[in-house]
This record gives sequence, structure tokens and C-alpha cells, in this order.
Amino acid sequence: MNDTGSSAAPAEPPEMAVLPEMLVADRLDRLRMLMVDEGVGALLVTNVTNVRYLTGFSGSAGSLWVDAGRAVLMTDGRYRDQAPVQVAETGADVTVEIAGTGRPSPLGALADGVGRVGLEADSVSWSEMKRLVGLLGGDPAPTTGLVEALREIKDDGEVARIAAAAAIADRALDSVASMFVEGSVESDLAAALDHAMRVGGATDRAFETIVAAGAHGALPHARPGDRVLDDGDLVVRDFGAVVDGYRSDMTRSTRVGGTGSGREAELLAVVLEAQEAGLAVVADGVPLAEVDRACRDVLVEAGLGEAFSHGTGHGVGLDIHEGPAVASTASGSLRTGQVVTVEPGVYVAGLGGVRWEDTVLVTNDGHRPLTGYPKIL
Amino acid sequence: MNDTGSSAAPAEPPEMAVLPEMLVADRLDRLRMLMVDEGVGALLVTNVTNVRYLTGFSGSAGSLWVDAGRAVLMTDGRYRDQAPVQVAETGADVTVEIAGTGRPSPLGALADGVGRVGLEADSVSWSEMKRLVGLLGGDPAPTTGLVEALREIKDDGEVARIAAAAAIADRALDSVASMFVEGSVESDLAAALDHAMRVGGATDRAFETIVAAGAHGALPHARPGDRVLDDGDLVVRDFGAVVDGYRSDMTRSTRVGGTGSGREAELLAVVLEAQEAGLAVVADGVPLAEVDRACRDVLVEAGLGEAFSHGTGHGVGLDIHEGPAVASTASGSLRTGQVVTVEPGVYVAGLGGVRWEDTVLVTNDGHRPLTGYPKIL
Repeated sequence: MNDTGSSAAPAEPPEMAVLPEMLVADRLDRLRMLMVDEGVGALLVTNVTNVRYLTGFSGSAGSLWVDAGRAVLMTDGRYRDQAPVQVAETGADVTVEIAGTGRPSPLGALADGVGRVGLEADSVSWSEMKRLVGLLGGDPAPTTGLVEALREIKDDGEVARIAAAAAIADRALDSVASMFVEGSVESDLAAALDHAMRVGGATDRAFETIVAAGAHGALPHARPGDRVLDDGDLVVRDFGAVVDGYRSDMTRSTRVGGTGSGREAELLAVVLEAQEAGLAVVADGVPLAEVDRACRDVLVEAGLGEAFSHGTGHGVGLDIHEGPAVASTASGSLRTGQVVTVEPGVYVAGLGGVRWEDTVLVTNDGHRPLTGYPKIL
Repeated sequence: MNDTGSSAAPAEPPEMAVLPEMLVADRLDRLRMLMVDEGVGALLVTNVTNVRYLTGFSGSAGSLWVDAGRAVLMTDGRYRDQAPVQVAETGADVTVEIAGTGRPSPLGALADGVGRVGLEADSVSWSEMKRLVGLLGGDPAPTTGLVEALREIKDDGEVARIAAAAAIADRALDSVASMFVEGSVESDLAAALDHAMRVGGATDRAFETIVAAGAHGALPHARPGDRVLDDGDLVVRDFGAVVDGYRSDMTRSTRVGGTGSGREAELLAVVLEAQEAGLAVVADGVPLAEVDRACRDVLVEAGLGEAFSHGTGHGVGLDIHEGPAVASTASGSLRTGQVVTVEPGVYVAGLGGVRWEDTVLVTNDGHRPLTGYPKIL
């Protein structure tokens, strides 16, 4: 569809020009409230995605010290120019320290007198933990999910970025949809989708694009291979784009040669019915497990309960999989400002898979869809 | 260059058809020898790249128990079909255990009577370490770099995969080289390179492709942006492909409008001279620091010592950055079978960057280049 020989800049999607600012500067004080509840006087944030969320700094290496009065971003010489600029753009009250060859780490001095220091136990490695204990002294506390809890509730700027990514993915599928015909190869179709997203303004794909046809589609996490599409194949297409670090996630299934009226058509229709049942209950205050149950009930009723072998959804943001998990075992409830997927699927060995997935914003009385490509039966 | 509207399969690169087998089955016994030296009776391998190296299993989740007599791959239901097939293809003596909903972990039983158990301290998180201690009992030992040490020496099958990836990258640059003209946009050029590698048979790019023009190129880790190429700009192009999990890495710098004879031409020539000096000393037994010094001496002599602000190279394989590090501070020596990059670069604020990089196989008396695109002055 797109001639890569053209060197002209693609038309900027309309969403890109009007991205509202994110409220980065407020996040540190909300984290400090969680730190008080956790009983730590300081937190060393080592998960780089969490560092980005709190400071705006998007480099690949850096950690952030946060205590009641200070926030100090520590990174290396590669980011000497970039880090102060990105932090200043957010207005966050963060000092930048560039670690130099031979310069001592400031951690020991920072830890002096602040009380117990928390480390992010899910992301810090065992060896890094031991190194940090040596620098910090004392008895650091393992913390889990503090910044991740903040990240679950998106502000308007974050939602706008996810929506912009979703719009790019919508247009990308539109531009390659006619390629899903007999004789096409999974890996070529995935490459074409990825390229259409990049040309459309995405900085990257949100995750490894899934194009899985026929029996291959019966693996929920299939990787695109050299399988050639046959007439009548079910095809699962699961993909997303990245805009300013934020991701989108959408699955559109189809049948090569048209939906027809056979077993494949039944599966496409009943999974769509399940997804619509799940979307219909999404709203602030609704138990996460209830969304899962709404989808699952439809499939169980259709004799496909066993064929729906994964959870119903997950949060989406700077990571493709973040909180909350939308699953039968989840204990919490949806909250306004969360962005979640609803993605029931069924997988029939030897036949193939069907999954429908949208990324939606949870609102007080329902949801706003962010992904918008038509669900065609 | 490539019309993504075509659904025909790309011609398979000649290298792909003749990839020799890798000697996966031997690796476990070599690891067991290292475990004896380390004083551990068993090792729980949790780094998924290390798991792939030892078993052939390429899934995204799984861990491998290795003791003197057994090797047990533990993964989840998503890989019920894939894991046994991939392990069997390698001939490795590995049992596959699929963790089920509610099925107890076999770790406690495995640990019984084997002596001290090692964990991979650089990759296991603090919280995962604590969970494993609960399952294993006793006092696990933190180990570092055991499997990574084996991975440094490539067998013929591994070299062939890296060479195949490098050949795809060479052809990709050839197919888009004419796009590097005034008016082109960095991010479009990066997208075109990435797409050309995919269409050429790569399963992915090896890392985020760098196309950095003009002053932007003075950042060694620049990400492609919306910068438009100007006549006379230096452009750094650093990219690689993936074949069967193995990566290539190459940088080719250029000047928009032709090399000419000005300051940019001098920089292109002197960095190439530095790279050739480094490549000239690569051979089994040569100290790693000597390769760095060979490059650095040329640039210091040219008054560009400060402008060469990073190490000279790194190992390449299943990871884009692995051992050995080729740097002034490195203490070891090159060994036959290592695959390393030699990539001196200079970065001049306000003007731009120049870097030349090849991926080469270390041999008894020199090296064999795996990347081959011409270095054009």
C-alpha cells in the first residue's frame, strides 16, 4: 500500500497535533502519600518506565530517588543533555545528577536520616539489590506496585496519546486489509501492518504483531511465520502502535474469502457477542471479575468455555500489559480513568482462533472506546 | 523501494536455506563443569535467553533446572505444544514440565539432596528470589555470568545465523541507500530500513534502528525523529537484523550530497582509519583493551580523543549486547569463536557524529567480517 521509496513525510495524523499536556508534576506528591502508607521514608525507583512516568525522562538507564522533600534523577553521561530538558518540560520538581566515571554515587548521602528506604522488589535484580544495600546501608524494604498503582489512572494527556496510537493502528489495518487474501504470508502481512503504523506516525509497534492464520491461530500467542493464507482460514490480527511512549492494543479477526455461514462464521459471531457483553458492563465501580464473567457466560453458553483459555483483559499505557488485570480471579473493581482491554477469544485445535479486542477508557457510567476499526462479520 | 502492497513472499536469502545446526545438546554438560567450579549442585536458570541457549525453547516465559543428572524445563500451558517440539529438535536431554493452574511447583522435590542451589543474580528480581527461596528452602547462592560465559563462544550454527542476519541488513541498506538525500526524514528512513529487513527475511530488527542526521548525530544514542536531512549533513545509520534469535549490528555513516572534502570528510576518513586499526589487531589471544587502544590512538592523534566517548565494541549473539566488552577497562583477551563489534565513533556538538561498525568473528589469526556493506568515503 505504501511505497517506502517515497521520502516525503507522511501526513501527520490530526490527533498528533493537539496532544494535551500530561500532569507529570503532580505524580511525585501522590507517590509520597503512598510511601507514607507503606512506611518508607524514601523510595529508589529503578524501573525505567516508572522513572519516565514520574519525571518525563525517556532514557534507557536511570533511577529516581524520592523522599519527602527531594526527587533526584540519576543517569549517565549519554543523557547529559536530554535528561534536564525532558524533566524541565514536565515542570516536575526533580534534580538531575549525571553519574560520571569515578564520581561517587550520591545514594549514601541521600539516605542519611530519611528513615527506611524502599526498593522496587519486582524490578530490582538480586545482585543490584545487594549493590544498593552496600551503598544505602541499613535494611531496605521491598515494595511492590507503588508507582504502578498511580499509573493505572490515566490523565487526559495520557488518554490522548493512547487514542492517537489507536487511531494510527486503525488506519494501518485499513491500509492493508485488502492484503488478507488467499496466498498471502503471515510474516509479510505482519511486516506490512508494522510498516503502515510507522509511516502513519507511530514511533514503534506496541508489541510483536500477531498475524495467525488457520490452525496456527489456535495458539493464543502465535508468532507470524511463513504460513500461507488459505481460502476459508480464520485469521487473528492483534497489534498496536506507540505514540510518545503510550501504547494501543486491538485484535480484529477475519475469515479469508469472507465470513460465509459455516463454523468459522459462528465462532466470529459468538466471540463478538461475548466481547459486546463484556464491554456493556464496563463502568466505574464494576468488579473486574464481572467483566470477565460477562464475556465468559456467553462462551460457556455456546459450549466454548474451555476454548476461552485466557483472561479477559489488562490495563494499557506505557507498558502493553499493566494494571488492572481483568480476570475471573481479580479482586478489585474498575475505576474511572483506567484504560483496559476487553478481549475474549476462543481457540479450536486444528481449526483456528477468533479474538476480538478493544482498548477502552473506563468512565463514570460506562466506557469510551479508543480503538475504532469496524468489527466486520 | 519495496511495495508493501505485494503479498508475494520475498525471495529467501541464500544464507537462510543452508543454516547449519547448532550444537545445543553439548551446552548443558559444559554448564555443569562451570557449576562444579562455582560450588553449586544445581542451577535454576531464569534468564529466558539463557534458557533458549540451553534448550532451544524460544517462549517468553520459562525456567530451567539443571543439576548433575537432570535438566527440567518448566513453562506454562501456552507452550504445551511448542516446548517439547523445540527441545526435541535440539536433541538436548531436557524434560519438559508444564505448570498448570493449581499444580504444585516441582522445585522443592528437585532441590532435595542436590546441595546448594544457584540462582542467576543478575536477572532474578528481589521478589522472585524470595519466592524461590520459599520453594527451594535452604540458602541459594547468587551466581553471575555462568551461561553468559558459554554464550561468548559461538558454534558454526550460531555464526551462520549472525552472518545471515548481517547479510539481510546489508541488502536492506543497499535497497534504501538512495533515499538518504536532502529532504528525507530520519524516522521515515529508519522505518524504511526496518521494513526492508523484514521483507528480506528478518524476523525483527535487532534493536531500535538509529538514523541520526546533522547535530542530532552528535548524540551516540539518538532516536530517529522528525529531523529533515539537509545537504551536507552527516548521518549515522546503526541497525541490525534478527535470524532465528541471532542478531547483527552494523553502522555506516555518510554525508548527504556526497562526502566532499570538508570537515565532515575528514571525520569520516579518520574514524574509518581508527576502525581499520582496531580490526587489524583482532585475533585470538589479543587483549580486549588493545583493540580499544588501537582505535583510540588514531583518534587521539587526530585531536578527537575526547570526542570518542564510548567503548569500542561488544559481543553479539542472542542479545545485541553480550560479552565480551571491548573497552579500555576490559581485562581479558579475545578468543576464537567470539563475535564482537568494532565501532569507534566521534561526536562533535553542533556538527554531528560519525561511527563505523562491523560485526566480526574472532579467529586464530585474525577475524572474519560478518557485516559487509561497503564503507564508502
